[in-house]
Amino acid sequence: MEQSELIKLLRGVKAGEIPEEDAAAALRAAVFPEASALPYADIDYHRALRKGAPEVIFGEGKTACQILGILSEMTGRGVKNIMATRLSPEKAEFLAARTRLTYYAEARIGVCEKTERELSGNIVVAAAGTSDIAVCEEAAVAAETLGSRVTRVYDVGVAGIHRLFRRLDELMAARVVVAVAGMEGALASVIGGLVSVPVIAVPTSVGYGANFGGLSALLSMLNSCASGVSVVNIDNGFGAGYLAHMINKNG
Amino acid sequence: MEQSELIKLLRGVKAGEIPEEDAAAALRAAVFPEASALPYADIDYHRALRKGAPEVIFGEGKTACQILGILSEMTGRGVKNIMATRLSPEKAEFLAARTRLTYYAEARIGVCEKTERELSGNIVVAAAGTSDIAVCEEAAVAAETLGSRVTRVYDVGVAGIHRLFRRLDELMAARVVVAVAGMEGALASVIGGLVSVPVIAVPTSVGYGANFGGLSALLSMLNSCASGVSVVNIDNGFGAGYLAHMINKNG
Amino acid sequence: MEQSELIKLLRGVKAGEIPEEDAAAALRAAVFPEASALPYADIDYHRALRKGAPEVIFGEGKTACQILGILSEMTGRGVKNIMATRLSPEKAEFLAARTRLTYYAEARIGVCEKTERELSGNIVVAAAGTSDIAVCEEAAVAAETLGSRVTRVYDVGVAGIHRLFRRLDELMAARVVVAVAGMEGALASVIGGLVSVPVIAVPTSVGYGANFGGLSALLSMLNSCASGVSVVNIDNGFGAGYLAHMINKNG
Amino acid sequence: MEQSELIKLLRGVKAGEIPEEDAAAALRAAVFPEASALPYADIDYHRALRKGAPEVIFGEGKTACQILGILSEMTGRGVKNIMATRLSPEKAEFLAARTRLTYYAEARIGVCEKTERELSGNIVVAAAGTSDIAVCEEAAVAAETLGSRVTRVYDVGVAGIHRLFRRLDELMAARVVVAVAGMEGALASVIGGLVSVPVIAVPTSVGYGANFGGLSALLSMLNSCASGVSVVNIDNGFGAGYLAHMINKNG
Amino acid sequence: MEQSELIKLLRGVKAGEIPEEDAAAALRAAVFPEASALPYADIDYHRALRKGAPEVIFGEGKTACQILGILSEMTGRGVKNIMATRLSPEKAEFLAARTRLTYYAEARIGVCEKTERELSGNIVVAAAGTSDIAVCEEAAVAAETLGSRVTRVYDVGVAGIHRLFRRLDELMAARVVVAVAGMEGALASVIGGLVSVPVIAVPTSVGYGANFGGLSALLSMLNSCASGVSVVNIDNGFGAGYLAHMINKNG
Amino acid sequence: MEQSELIKLLRGVKAGEIPEEDAAAALRAAVFPEASALPYADIDYHRALRKGAPEVIFGEGKTACQILGILSEMTGRGVKNIMATRLSPEKAEFLAARTRLTYYAEARIGVCEKTERELSGNIVVAAAGTSDIAVCEEAAVAAETLGSRVTRVYDVGVAGIHRLFRRLDELMAARVVVAVAGMEGALASVIGGLVSVPVIAVPTSVGYGANFGGLSALLSMLNSCASGVSVVNIDNGFGAGYLAHMINKNG
Amino acid sequence: MEQSELIKLLRGVKAGEIPEEDAAAALRAAVFPEASALPYADIDYHRALRKGAPEVIFGEGKTACQILGILSEMTGRGVKNIMATRLSPEKAEFLAARTRLTYYAEARIGVCEKTERELSGNIVVAAAGTSDIAVCEEAAVAAETLGSRVTRVYDVGVAGIHRLFRRLDELMAARVVVAVAGMEGALASVIGGLVSVPVIAVPTSVGYGANFGGLSALLSMLNSCASGVSVVNIDNGFGAGYLAHMINKNG
Amino acid sequence: MEQSELIKLLRGVKAGEIPEEDAAAALRAAVFPEASALPYADIDYHRALRKGAPEVIFGEGKTACQILGILSEMTGRGVKNIMATRLSPEKAEFLAARTRLTYYAEARIGVCEKTERELSGNIVVAAAGTSDIAVCEEAAVAAETLGSRVTRVYDVGVAGIHRLFRRLDELMAARVVVAVAGMEGALASVIGGLVSVPVIAVPTSVGYGANFGGLSALLSMLNSCASGVSVVNIDNGFGAGYLAHMINKNG
Repeated sequence: MEQSELIKLLRGVKAGEIPEEDAAAALRAAVFPEASALPYADIDYHRALRKGAPEVIFGEGKTACQILGILSEMTGRGVKNIMATRLSPEKAEFLAARTRLTYYAEARIGVCEKTERELSGNIVVAAAGTSDIAVCEEAAVAAETLGSRVTRVYDVGVAGIHRLFRRLDELMAARVVVAVAGMEGALASVIGGLVSVPVIAVPTSVGYGANFGGLSALLSMLNSCASGVSVVNIDNGFGAGYLAHMINKNG
Repeated sequence: MEQSELIKLLRGVKAGEIPEEDAAAALRAAVFPEASALPYADIDYHRALRKGAPEVIFGEGKTACQILGILSEMTGRGVKNIMATRLSPEKAEFLAARTRLTYYAEARIGVCEKTERELSGNIVVAAAGTSDIAVCEEAAVAAETLGSRVTRVYDVGVAGIHRLFRRLDELMAARVVVAVAGMEGALASVIGGLVSVPVIAVPTSVGYGANFGGLSALLSMLNSCASGVSVVNIDNGFGAGYLAHMINKNG
Repeated sequence: MEQSELIKLLRGVKAGEIPEEDAAAALRAAVFPEASALPYADIDYHRALRKGAPEVIFGEGKTACQILGILSEMTGRGVKNIMATRLSPEKAEFLAARTRLTYYAEARIGVCEKTERELSGNIVVAAAGTSDIAVCEEAAVAAETLGSRVTRVYDVGVAGIHRLFRRLDELMAARVVVAVAGMEGALASVIGGLVSVPVIAVPTSVGYGANFGGLSALLSMLNSCASGVSVVNIDNGFGAGYLAHMINKNG
Repeated sequence: MEQSELIKLLRGVKAGEIPEEDAAAALRAAVFPEASALPYADIDYHRALRKGAPEVIFGEGKTACQILGILSEMTGRGVKNIMATRLSPEKAEFLAARTRLTYYAEARIGVCEKTERELSGNIVVAAAGTSDIAVCEEAAVAAETLGSRVTRVYDVGVAGIHRLFRRLDELMAARVVVAVAGMEGALASVIGGLVSVPVIAVPTSVGYGANFGGLSALLSMLNSCASGVSVVNIDNGFGAGYLAHMINKNG
Repeated sequence: MEQSELIKLLRGVKAGEIPEEDAAAALRAAVFPEASALPYADIDYHRALRKGAPEVIFGEGKTACQILGILSEMTGRGVKNIMATRLSPEKAEFLAARTRLTYYAEARIGVCEKTERELSGNIVVAAAGTSDIAVCEEAAVAAETLGSRVTRVYDVGVAGIHRLFRRLDELMAARVVVAVAGMEGALASVIGGLVSVPVIAVPTSVGYGANFGGLSALLSMLNSCASGVSVVNIDNGFGAGYLAHMINKNG
Repeated sequence: MEQSELIKLLRGVKAGEIPEEDAAAALRAAVFPEASALPYADIDYHRALRKGAPEVIFGEGKTACQILGILSEMTGRGVKNIMATRLSPEKAEFLAARTRLTYYAEARIGVCEKTERELSGNIVVAAAGTSDIAVCEEAAVAAETLGSRVTRVYDVGVAGIHRLFRRLDELMAARVVVAVAGMEGALASVIGGLVSVPVIAVPTSVGYGANFGGLSALLSMLNSCASGVSVVNIDNGFGAGYLAHMINKNG
Repeated sequence: MEQSELIKLLRGVKAGEIPEEDAAAALRAAVFPEASALPYADIDYHRALRKGAPEVIFGEGKTACQILGILSEMTGRGVKNIMATRLSPEKAEFLAARTRLTYYAEARIGVCEKTERELSGNIVVAAAGTSDIAVCEEAAVAAETLGSRVTRVYDVGVAGIHRLFRRLDELMAARVVVAVAGMEGALASVIGGLVSVPVIAVPTSVGYGANFGGLSALLSMLNSCASGVSVVNIDNGFGAGYLAHMINKNG
Repeated sequence: MEQSELIKLLRGVKAGEIPEEDAAAALRAAVFPEASALPYADIDYHRALRKGAPEVIFGEGKTACQILGILSEMTGRGVKNIMATRLSPEKAEFLAARTRLTYYAEARIGVCEKTERELSGNIVVAAAGTSDIAVCEEAAVAAETLGSRVTRVYDVGVAGIHRLFRRLDELMAARVVVAVAGMEGALASVIGGLVSVPVIAVPTSVGYGANFGGLSALLSMLNSCASGVSVVNIDNGFGAGYLAHMINKNG
């Protein structure tokens, strides 16, 4: 509630047009929007205004029934393009039978009440190896669902660096790059040294031995010597896709 | 070298206008630019083209003499606004006596051959506590040197969260936010939940006990539930400022 | 055995009213209460006197038969409201068929020989997300079984902080708050900055990637800048509920 | 601002007694209290109302001048008993020459504008070894400054457990116990098994080798089998003393 | 081969009583005993002489067939009392059908060609909780198989320390104590402060959350303030039992 | 493309023998070889030239279908001796039904289009224990497939060090040694002190408790006091075998 | 106080020979021996009876004055051979001027009121490298002060293993071996495989890089494959020497 | 001692040409070479035979006097080219005044009794950044002292990857490459993907924040996807140089 709206409200009170109790309620509501009716979730309906995208449901650790409850409440209020991430095929099947759900199996993302929209801008999602593709797809599908155009550049790890150079044109055309890699995570640094746009690095838990569940790639990416590189959590494809969309839509 | 330039070059060879040896040199040079003459550093002059900013000198681990050598070579080629980060007051004093250096003591950044330029856009740099200000200044000075306008919002940690809310207007006006915090690092999550622009989180090593040199804030920030948050290395104010400038200039 | 009781006993010996052997036995028993007859457990019957609550059985790592044996011995001596925590549904079913057991499935707590009692005081148990509710319920059921009144405030994580503010009245009415959160664990700090009562922080293992099984939330909570916050082990809902009851009953 | 105050304010507007602009300012101020004039600190004056104690200054990482600035502003508004913790003797000397400061050298706490007050309740602060006393004193002085009575029980580590038992009466009389220990940190568990009141465990960084700066005691205390034990950060005597006071004053 | 035997051998060569080739073989054999015929294992038959006990088979990571092969070769050479540790019930069943195997299910130890022998000395094996008993039994059965008398003192953790004191007489009668505990591992320190004999501490992986698979107990035990305490690997009951036997048989 | 080839190409252009467009393509192709047609993999065909061995497929994290696709494309281009590592028996069976695959079960390596070749040089692969043999076989089969002769020296751990000495002759005859060990990893140091050739140490995840998935052996090997020892990742038998072949073939 | 003494005391009360108050005091004293008069230390005088050696003062973290106070109180009660460990040369000089102190500089141990006694048994203290000798000397001097004979076997690390074998006779003659090593810590395993007596392993913080302050040697020693090896804290020479003496005196 | 020598010796005994006692001594000496006379060091004179290079003195943790003692004993026996590593300028100055020492300041290596020798083969030592040069020099000087030719390729980190490509010819001409990098350590992977010879990766402790003293580079290098890469300890330039020489001299 802006200063102007506040004074307008108060003038309404003064003029007797707005009862005091109503004004008090309006003021309180501006700070405290109505709560969800679900006992186990408090859906953030103001988020679409505040963040530019509806709330996203993290599917892991919630039962299919809980997710269904949240989806139903949200669709009941007319929300579109609701993403549920980390959604297993079993939960997706359960939900698809009860809601209008589009399921992206490799990305493990379900989109409820998906609408067509034109994609704009250009995000490159780059994968070091074949095993990193699932995380890449999570990033790509999330960004596409939010309205960004995505170019996939996969299997361009630094152990055969000419493969990356072969696709330099695509990299150079990006407004923002998502670089996904496990093991030693060097892809983010090499790309960060080549492009002039932000690079979002996603460490993956792919690997074995002393990669310690993605820690090696995480530390490698945090210590990147290249400027313009930042990092999200291990395997957090969604977070990278969401942030990439934020940067892309402003570009 | 674009495809068109390449064909033009080859046509020049065919027409006898360009000697073969010259063409070969030109082709090789396009891939291998001339090396620096310094034995201990190979300055990346193509970087200004490639990354949109001249190379930055990481001052820690280099002697004042080595930095002077690099600065001299770069200024000798007409490079302006060369930043040297992590520059101790002693090294700054040494360099200021021998080069045209502007030194920002709190940020520990020296700028050589600084030129006036108009600042544009809007980056908010937010600090959780008084002790985080040095890292904030590194971010702010770096972004300002690169050409971005910066708003400082300091001492707004979550333990007294109304202090943050008092400055919501400033936060809401940002194109990108740099959130700097040590200890539990919660500032990034709270800001990330409030704004609709990218948040670059910088963990600091401020604290004691189980903060393990910034690890607690780093992990906290990587695990942020808020969307649109990414993380740079502990105490890496420069990296955050650089990335914020990249995002800001595109906005 | 207090000093006065000791002198009284000795006077009895002097007066010949108490045989020496009996006095010796009484003295020894005061220090060494009779042991349990079970080979695999030594039940702490003095605990109800010493700690104000009967011994609690940690169900993980004990077979259903061992738990049954302990419950039988304790109920045989008339102990009421015996809690068994970390009790799987299978073990609960086995025990419910053989004892008078009330089972709280979400909390994974069984209460044997549960008696009605009036609940008093006010503990708020707050959850950052839906996935943290199991740990919250362990805390809430434990505290209720011990005799405390509990208010549940769920899904109020800091990524949408207005949800927390909407429930400020409930938080402000607490004598002690249990704050349960995984991921970045910022909830404890934010609540700790708002209320004037002790906050018991419970990190949960909810999350993925660099949360390292709850380590990120644990470190975050230990490094909280807010005063009045202390921490229990990862996922230790019972410990938090027990301690909250201790503080609540004294309030 | 309560609902009743809000309606009263609105009625004043309606009656023309309160100008709209004033009302708007009052409403805004209720949420956004006036900021501090210091560039590097935003003092939390509402804290005394909200938390029951004035803001405490963490002296590490602030210059003596910054601390002086904060103290001056606070004392200028009439705040009493302002604690500055982690205060080196050098900073204390500087401040004592310029403010009315009482300095507790072993606790490294300075109290500005200290007033006499009657101490109430009973907190026991127990130390495992002689080397843990500095952290104990930080806890004890903090609690005493806030108004609690403190009993010191030092050098009662579990390697000679009869020393602890010799002081059982003092332990048993506590409303809350602060147990301070480095090395293996077993003191908290043993005390937690003996008393029926909350135990706040403080791991210290005292030790060598595989204690890893207090990590061993921290983990040991977090894993305590005794009920009613919670943990604060390594060496965080102040946090323990503050929390102990909170629990004690309610008892 | 002692110096005297060596000279005797050489005199035999000189006297022509021992062919040179035989002497060379004997000398080589003294240093290089004959190898096992198994491709996957090189059994250490000299161990009984060198270490006072036959080689022990670590059953984890070996197939039942491999263990059978090793047992067969050893029993074929008349070795008795061969222990196989970490032996699953399935492997034990397989082996018991093919060899003379006595299986201790709780200790997960199988003894092949077990002979009766008189047990001597006195080792106390103490467990903090019921869940630690499996590791205790591994220690106890190993020590008994090697010939030591063992007293079991179970469920005497420090959270109810009178239970430990009730069994002080048994503890005091030990020549060596094995203290087994998970969680905070304080049992080793408390026992170490009470007895005058060596204490072998065994951390167990029992627990959850920040016990990190036994790390908390391990660090706690390594940092024990009590003298005379040493530590073996997490869950290494066998190692503790073996070492306890070594110390006990010398006592 | 060497300088001479480049000038030759340009002369062809000048002479009108080579069309400009063809020359441009040839120049571009020299830097960017043709890409694979698979969407999920970009096979590195230049690798055989560059590294002396065809690309190796890391089988973990790829589906059997993806591996089949890669094998088919490679065999379609006439590549021989293609290794697929970390290949489960199930995937191997699937592939063997569709390609000419030789499967080494213990090494979990499949070799597609295997050709006979003479083995040369001498690599010793040494295992500390029976449980380390699977990793050894991965190293040995990889080196043999690449063309090196391998001597296996198994079960020679340092706890019975005469077993190692019995096989000194074999060790001394090696051109390079691969030392594989879990637990304390001391084998690499002891061998490194005995031989005058490079020792490649492979830590294995064999063990339990404080071996932390191979970390203890890894750290031990990295800290080896013996000269000439280097380390590869935990359980990375293939990497060790490949490197050993590189060194062996040059020797 | 034994059962017989207790009955005797009670009979004295009955006979009127012992006043009740005296008896009560005697009983209490049996459990609670008289406390030290020092405010900062509670000396454990019962320790000589209980543990067979007087209390040892850990000098690190205590001021020279505090140590002097403790020494004075102990010598005032006639205690002999009081060890102060981790004693810097400066503190030793201070104390030597005020007490009868023998200082062992390399071991950093001071012995107050040292008496001559005959050394018995045989402990071998073995060092892997020259840099480990300070820790070895701490072990050796501690054991000698307690009455054990010690044989020093230094610089016998496994990188040149014949040096260890050259001293096998000395090792074989030991009743207990203390094996001190940094870096990879393999010495303990190799010795443990050779001797039939207990081996106490002491990891040292000697080294650099990935030895992480002794962690590599600690983990290596905990994971030793050899039987009969246990471990004390990093650099804890005193603890090893004390325990070795315990085992040696019983042998 | 080979089989043939052994039989020859025994024949000499048989023939009466060699006294039995002498033969016994010879046999013993073959296994146990004469020990050094220094109390604190046991110099490994057989090493030159066994390893192809004289023993190297690790200078850290030894006093200048101890190093002098070792050097004197070794030069007294005619040993040449004795390296002392991690030698501070102060110790070097002390030694240079007393021995014939050549000191390489940047490498911190002193060579005693250095002789001229022809360098052969070709080792490339590559540094990612200017700050890594000290570790590079340690590797390079060590390899040169042992007899290898070394090419230095410095400041070619992956953030400006064309700098590396500019020096491809030098890299391609190597028999073995030492790749030295801190921060994210990606240099080893990129080089490993380009060359067909062994790459020895040296992580350095250069950096800050989450590089944790070189851990990030270490993990990155261990997880390298490129074949033919192995790793030595953090900052262990000497170890890399020594191993590179071993591989180079065989090539």
